[in-house]
Amino acid sequence: MSEWFDRCRKYTLTDAKTGFEINFAGMNFTDADLEKLTPLFAKANAGIAAIEKGEIKNPDEQRKVTHFTDRITYCTSPLYEAVEKFAAEVRSGNITGSTGRPFTAVAVNGIGGSALGPQLLQFAVNGPYWNELSAEVRKNGLKIYFLDNTDSAEFADLCQVMDPETTLHLVVSKSGGTQETKNNMIAMERFYAARGLDFGRHAVAVTMKGSKLDKYAAEKKFLASFEMADSIGGRTSESAIVGHVPAALTGIDFKNFIAGFLRMDELTRNTDAFKNPAMMLSAMWYIAGAGKGDRNMVIVPYSDRLVLLSRYLQQLVMESLGKELDLDGKVCHQGLNVFGNKGGTDAHAFIQQLNDGRDDFFATFIELLADAQKIDLGDGKVMGDYLHGFCAGLTEALRSKKRQTISIKLPKLTVFELGMVIALYERAVAIYAEFININAFHQPGVQAYKLAATGELELKSKLDAAFQAMSGFKGDAAAVADKAGVPEQAAAVEGWLRRMAANGGVKAEFNGSVWIYTIN
Amino acid sequence: MSEWFDRCRKYTLTDAKTGFEINFAGMNFTDADLEKLTPLFAKANAGIAAIEKGEIKNPDEQRKVTHFTDRITYCTSPLYEAVEKFAAEVRSGNITGSTGRPFTAVAVNGIGGSALGPQLLQFAVNGPYWNELSAEVRKNGLKIYFLDNTDSAEFADLCQVMDPETTLHLVVSKSGGTQETKNNMIAMERFYAARGLDFGRHAVAVTMKGSKLDKYAAEKKFLASFEMADSIGGRTSESAIVGHVPAALTGIDFKNFIAGFLRMDELTRNTDAFKNPAMMLSAMWYIAGAGKGDRNMVIVPYSDRLVLLSRYLQQLVMESLGKELDLDGKVCHQGLNVFGNKGGTDAHAFIQQLNDGRDDFFATFIELLADAQKIDLGDGKVMGDYLHGFCAGLTEALRSKKRQTISIKLPKLTVFELGMVIALYERAVAIYAEFININAFHQPGVQAYKLAATGELELKSKLDAAFQAMSGFKGDAAAVADKAGVPEQAAAVEGWLRRMAANGGVKAEFNGSVWIYTIN
Repeated sequence: MSEWFDRCRKYTLTDAKTGFEINFAGMNFTDADLEKLTPLFAKANAGIAAIEKGEIKNPDEQRKVTHFTDRITYCTSPLYEAVEKFAAEVRSGNITGSTGRPFTAVAVNGIGGSALGPQLLQFAVNGPYWNELSAEVRKNGLKIYFLDNTDSAEFADLCQVMDPETTLHLVVSKSGGTQETKNNMIAMERFYAARGLDFGRHAVAVTMKGSKLDKYAAEKKFLASFEMADSIGGRTSESAIVGHVPAALTGIDFKNFIAGFLRMDELTRNTDAFKNPAMMLSAMWYIAGAGKGDRNMVIVPYSDRLVLLSRYLQQLVMESLGKELDLDGKVCHQGLNVFGNKGGTDAHAFIQQLNDGRDDFFATFIELLADAQKIDLGDGKVMGDYLHGFCAGLTEALRSKKRQTISIKLPKLTVFELGMVIALYERAVAIYAEFININAFHQPGVQAYKLAATGELELKSKLDAAFQAMSGFKGDAAAVADKAGVPEQAAAVEGWLRRMAANGGVKAEFNGSVWIYTIN
Repeated sequence: MSEWFDRCRKYTLTDAKTGFEINFAGMNFTDADLEKLTPLFAKANAGIAAIEKGEIKNPDEQRKVTHFTDRITYCTSPLYEAVEKFAAEVRSGNITGSTGRPFTAVAVNGIGGSALGPQLLQFAVNGPYWNELSAEVRKNGLKIYFLDNTDSAEFADLCQVMDPETTLHLVVSKSGGTQETKNNMIAMERFYAARGLDFGRHAVAVTMKGSKLDKYAAEKKFLASFEMADSIGGRTSESAIVGHVPAALTGIDFKNFIAGFLRMDELTRNTDAFKNPAMMLSAMWYIAGAGKGDRNMVIVPYSDRLVLLSRYLQQLVMESLGKELDLDGKVCHQGLNVFGNKGGTDAHAFIQQLNDGRDDFFATFIELLADAQKIDLGDGKVMGDYLHGFCAGLTEALRSKKRQTISIKLPKLTVFELGMVIALYERAVAIYAEFININAFHQPGVQAYKLAATGELELKSKLDAAFQAMSGFKGDAAAVADKAGVPEQAAAVEGWLRRMAANGGVKAEFNGSVWIYTIN
């Protein structure tokens, strides 16, 4: 046990100033393993320096990568002031909706990086029941909703709960061309128009200067359009304008959030790898997964309010590191799987497998030291004692099975600590990308998928046109595809036909082995 | 393309009666691969028959496994009637809280299997904003909250939002000994007592007959205690009393939910493997992961309301299949990783990796054919067209990269279809367990973790006792552990000391390399 204690001592990094601590002792590595990484540490230090100097570190897209540096000055920028002022005026009722009533809610319309960060921050800081609390308890912070898909059920759910007159719509899209976001905006505008309300008077944009959305916002007289930097990608935008606007509207102390990022940035700029938490973290990922992501990263915060952290990190890590080609254009098929939810709950869910099953992961536990509330259980213990006991017990149980773990301790959960955690992973991702020689800041696979989706939607248009001359036509999907002039796309045509049959326009009968469609 | 269409035809199973469809064509297998599984299909058929005949199929725990069969008669049972009656009386105000006010909300206190199913069902059927809707819109269905951890923040969040006089507490624990659930119950009872309210008059239990909780409920005069079967495990309890009570209280049509299970049970009892969706699904898992879970299962429902499905399946699959020993007592370290969230959103999150990165997964897409609402976007398309286009596009993009996919189509999303999906995976898990010769119905790893946690909590008691004679003692964790008589547990002692320092009782100063503690 003393050996274990010594190992914990040796491989724990502590920031005494903030109380942040990360312990790598539970990972399977030796000093020799770390020594071997010396050249990679040097490469990463150079790469990080290049990023922070403003070199083009996203070569395909010819972009700088400025999320680490822009935030240094963000809270003293005119943009920061403009957002704070706008939010204060909305919250005080100086800025109102089209009918003169003050805003009571904001609906954030954005997807991926435009939604996951704000959702994480909101849930962590304002809790799960924010919208159900009185305006007094919320200190006039707006209620908050999210449209982060193009699902008519999600849209209908929002329309059912919101009061259109008192809802502000925050449309977040860097390019302004994100289809899901555009769909929700168009649909919402039509919803408002149908009620005789001027959508522009209820809308605010976050987008690049001069983008389609920026122009649209000007044309429709949105209440404001805040500028998004070209050099900050969606998945690293939580410390920038994308995080700021929803936070300010709900009364979150964004400046202190940024202070957490900045403190961690300071710690993770340390060029001594052994003292740099992000460098060590990346090294653990690298060693554990043999430089190819051979182990899944399981994220288990012992905190209900951090239940969305794994989903946030899933995007940050997987979208950044999951790449087909390295920077030299060689096929590498890199990646690092991330999943998780929250402890102790997960111990009653998937931890059985981690304890006993496949040894194909490393778990990262995140623990809060201070209890949100002292809840005495009458047995000499408070509720937080149990949560710690479960976290420590699980860590021990896994260690006894030679399963690998990393432990992070935070003094408490405020915006500051959350900022630290996000900044830690942002830096670790950038460092790991240097280790494996990939571009962490583009997403070519998402583009490929967008093209295929566009093809599908074009097929729908073709079918709609062809069906006008096919009324009464009856046949299986192959016959319909033939007749519509797209014989090679029978499988895709069947996809559309099934939908049409369920929503009207086409009739479908199962003949015992296949569906037979009749065009109306 | 025609080849692809033919393959889709060949490997799609359709239930014309319900519109359910599952397409395995996107998986990498041949007829020969399936042929090789013939002995396993026979073994699984025998195993399933044994389960349904009531044999002891959970040998360690000497239990039958009755979730597939008990539900056949559940909706005609006296228990079903009793729950429906209880729920109706609560919702109509015939049964009230201790101050005579009608109940408006239910807080479900349960963890793991006692929470995940009810959460999934609620979110899928009642939507994300249920608690914010008026009683009229809810048709007097209760608002619903969950306590599914032992986190003081979660407890405090609930206490802040609930009205104690009008909240019903549903305590769900099979044995009655689940510590997290017990903690929340004790804490809530104290919370009520502090306000002069009789907790028993606000409480209802779901537990085994004669369990600690059952006795406690009798002693404290709970409004009711509903019986949980010994032979139904937590993670397969959603179609039983665990699912029923919260569903009935919020006005969900549980009978129709069960009808969905029963329809899928019918389909998955088919002893012809090629016509049995669950047998084929298990075969896909088996072939894809070489019988050892070598590929992660990624669950992507194209439906916002199904965002919790992956979390639900994570427990069902991983807790069931993640095992150290097989049924012959041989070390096997089995398992099958599950993660996911929702499409199309995920395409902006982790799909980059699935498209381009590691080829270590198979994705399961779940699509709803009928739109929740027809939302015209003014371009000849409705919102649902885009969602389908994105789903089909992503499936194609993945296929073009030789990545593996399974596609499930549901006509729409009601309780019935959700029941079908859960039943499908329940059966597939039971079948896969037969394939790999493990017990899918116990959780020995969770027990190991519970023991370790108990050790941690006992250490806390020891420290509390020792510290009474150590006032003013100053030293690092090793010195404190020494002095307290637990020198071999210095690392665990440090875990407690950090907590005590953050919550009071101990002072901590960082000396530049380690924390130095002073006992108050």
